[in-house]
Amino acid sequence: MKMDYLSVTDLTAELTKKLIIKAIDLKKQNYRGNELKGKTVALIFEKPSLRTRTTFEVAIFHLGGYPIYLAPGDIKLGVREPVKDVARNLDKWVDAIVARVFDHRTLLELSEYARIPVINALSDLEHPCQALADFMTIYEIAGTFDVKLSFIGDSNNVANSLMLLSAMMGTDFSLAHPPGYEPDSLVVEKALDLAAESGSVITITTDPVEAAKHADFVYTDVWTSMGQESEREKRVRDFQGYQVNSELLEYASKDVRVMHCLPAHRGEEITEEVMESERSVVFQQAENRLHTEKSLFLEIFKG
Amino acid sequence: MKMDYLSVTDLTAELTKKLIIKAIDLKKQNYRGNELKGKTVALIFEKPSLRTRTTFEVAIFHLGGYPIYLAPGDIKLGVREPVKDVARNLDKWVDAIVARVFDHRTLLELSEYARIPVINALSDLEHPCQALADFMTIYEIAGTFDVKLSFIGDSNNVANSLMLLSAMMGTDFSLAHPPGYEPDSLVVEKALDLAAESGSVITITTDPVEAAKHADFVYTDVWTSMGQESEREKRVRDFQGYQVNSELLEYASKDVRVMHCLPAHRGEEITEEVMESERSVVFQQAENRLHTEKSLFLEIFKG
Amino acid sequence: MKMDYLSVTDLTAELTKKLIIKAIDLKKQNYRGNELKGKTVALIFEKPSLRTRTTFEVAIFHLGGYPIYLAPGDIKLGVREPVKDVARNLDKWVDAIVARVFDHRTLLELSEYARIPVINALSDLEHPCQALADFMTIYEIAGTFDVKLSFIGDSNNVANSLMLLSAMMGTDFSLAHPPGYEPDSLVVEKALDLAAESGSVITITTDPVEAAKHADFVYTDVWTSMGQESEREKRVRDFQGYQVNSELLEYASKDVRVMHCLPAHRGEEITEEVMESERSVVFQQAENRLHTEKSLFLEIFKG
Repeated sequence: MKMDYLSVTDLTAELTKKLIIKAIDLKKQNYRGNELKGKTVALIFEKPSLRTRTTFEVAIFHLGGYPIYLAPGDIKLGVREPVKDVARNLDKWVDAIVARVFDHRTLLELSEYARIPVINALSDLEHPCQALADFMTIYEIAGTFDVKLSFIGDSNNVANSLMLLSAMMGTDFSLAHPPGYEPDSLVVEKALDLAAESGSVITITTDPVEAAKHADFVYTDVWTSMGQESEREKRVRDFQGYQVNSELLEYASKDVRVMHCLPAHRGEEITEEVMESERSVVFQQAENRLHTEKSLFLEIFKG
Repeated sequence: MKMDYLSVTDLTAELTKKLIIKAIDLKKQNYRGNELKGKTVALIFEKPSLRTRTTFEVAIFHLGGYPIYLAPGDIKLGVREPVKDVARNLDKWVDAIVARVFDHRTLLELSEYARIPVINALSDLEHPCQALADFMTIYEIAGTFDVKLSFIGDSNNVANSLMLLSAMMGTDFSLAHPPGYEPDSLVVEKALDLAAESGSVITITTDPVEAAKHADFVYTDVWTSMGQESEREKRVRDFQGYQVNSELLEYASKDVRVMHCLPAHRGEEITEEVMESERSVVFQQAENRLHTEKSLFLEIFKG
Repeated sequence: MKMDYLSVTDLTAELTKKLIIKAIDLKKQNYRGNELKGKTVALIFEKPSLRTRTTFEVAIFHLGGYPIYLAPGDIKLGVREPVKDVARNLDKWVDAIVARVFDHRTLLELSEYARIPVINALSDLEHPCQALADFMTIYEIAGTFDVKLSFIGDSNNVANSLMLLSAMMGTDFSLAHPPGYEPDSLVVEKALDLAAESGSVITITTDPVEAAKHADFVYTDVWTSMGQESEREKRVRDFQGYQVNSELLEYASKDVRVMHCLPAHRGEEITEEVMESERSVVFQQAENRLHTEKSLFLEIFKG
């Protein structure tokens, strides 16, 4: 059976941990291999990308494969051609699909119709490859997943994946969002179910101080994601008080590390000072994108 | 001497058959090779593409080469720089040119000035690589080219290549088009000349039923091609009655297969029902793009 | 220490000569190697390109590496994300950056923040990779750098790099520009300093005949570069009399060769007749882009 990665919940906690430990090893080795020799991967992007695209291209090349980057506008999924047809074309030629889409349902349809693995490179619902790299970063620093991770800001795709993955891995997770920016209720429900099993504590609040209290890792992301540009002014107003800055970090653990999936808008969700401080591990997270994606490909193509 | 593939008539019937049989073999083997080791191919696209671009990139990689995709707007053939200059630049660096152009004359000029092979990836006049994959599909299914192929719809580049290739290969070919959408008279003339030699029967009519009668393969394509969007409303009106649907297929051979070069506009030139039926071989055609292009490269670079 | 190539002056005259002689050797061998095995290079282009992009992609592939082309609009340096962040992301994943930018300061910032080599693929200030190929062409033809090179036209990035490289290599260099299109005074100052050491004679004039007199090589470039389209009409007027044509070449050496970095606007800065004459070495220059870039990569990654 093919292995997709559309949600962090597509892998078990055990397999996720195994992938992360493997990724740490690949990073140490500065690994190059041939596991994808003769294999090609279609990279479909409905929105532009620096990190996701570059790390996938490099990961595939480092393993001997060849990525085909299909830019926004190149294939116009569902406009120029139905998604189900694109899926049934691609699976005749390539060995996997990596897709960044506006609507998560596009991924589900690609997966349903393609007989090859489909990897979520960001949708409106989740960003699992980012979360995987973030948890690798946490594990590198803390040596355990048994920490408190606090997310301050918009209950977006990144927050969703982090909440679910925390719930899976036994990580305490607190989300502070402004009123009116509640997380998807189905995601929260699923996270609470998973947390009941793993023992992690999931807290959702509108109080950033409460969320940040004793946090080992404080995470934030832009207030206005790609596609929401028209709401920018309102969002900047609504998110006042949800900035990750030195004052907020006073409430966190004294060894707190600050995380961001980038690009960052300094002066909005994070200050320049915090971003450039010793506590910031944002470029370590970015680096780990490469290694976790390699690890994921090795698992997908291990057969 | 360099080998171009601008028209299906650039290869003899004998060599075409040899390439198709080789392609069937490459498909069976899921072939990977090194015949293009150290070689690069420029892929110039004046219009976007999913199938043509992806299959060429994959074919080149599977043979050890490297494709350079130059997107619409990247080089602006003839605008930013004269075609003859682009040709004389590229042939210093790369080993072949694959080009999708608006105007067939651009291909002729590229070929005249470049000392390297030029392959037509679709022009206003022909789509030879598509026709090659289609005839591979016919041969896989029928075990012979001695069948009746019927094309219902717009007398476009795909129809031109299919008509010429039918005439070369001894395939009976009937085209049904609405009044006012006659095929290029030079193409018809050439097809009739070739048919006189091969014994194939070429029929051109405005009656879809007559064309479809006893057909072993019924082929259609969109009514409005890229670049004709402004004529769309008129075309949809003019092509009423030229849809490939269950009723029309009643007149065809009972084992008829339905072909389409994709993308398809369901409800226009083809119904969803026919498209998704057992009779549809559209994804087999798409798959064969990869294998015939590999076969073509092996011939071009066999030296 | 990492080796950048932002300006022709980043290499000594001695090393420049060594690179050119190596490039001539690579060209003779039609060289393929594995020196970049497992290595990736980000190609960031803020403006479109045929020659620079294609030659870099081919050079990297011929040496066993993998180029990642980031098109204008893909990453929006400094808009979607600060340049310093892009630099600190890329250096986690790739082994070098090649960048074509509007503002030379973008290159300086990339270089400051990235721990990997940065190569200038054209900025508003310089085009060192073009100049390197041009001096290889001069050396192939003349067997020495001790010639007179005359640049007629706009005091642009190409003229700057040629002036500086001439001053380094002991080449006499004369620039003829219309009044009001003076070269950057800092560049001229630097060139004069370098010339004082090498013995080359640098002449800057508004008289094209004076500049062309006894020239062994007459070079020109478009009057209106990318980004200056709005000034086109005024520029065409101002540059009348600065065309490289048969009349002007009467003043040059009888064996004069004509150079252009392409694309050319026939009828403006150069005539069709001169462009297509035996004296034109423009496609040899274009070809040499590939070989000098290979030579540069071999030096950068020789460690």
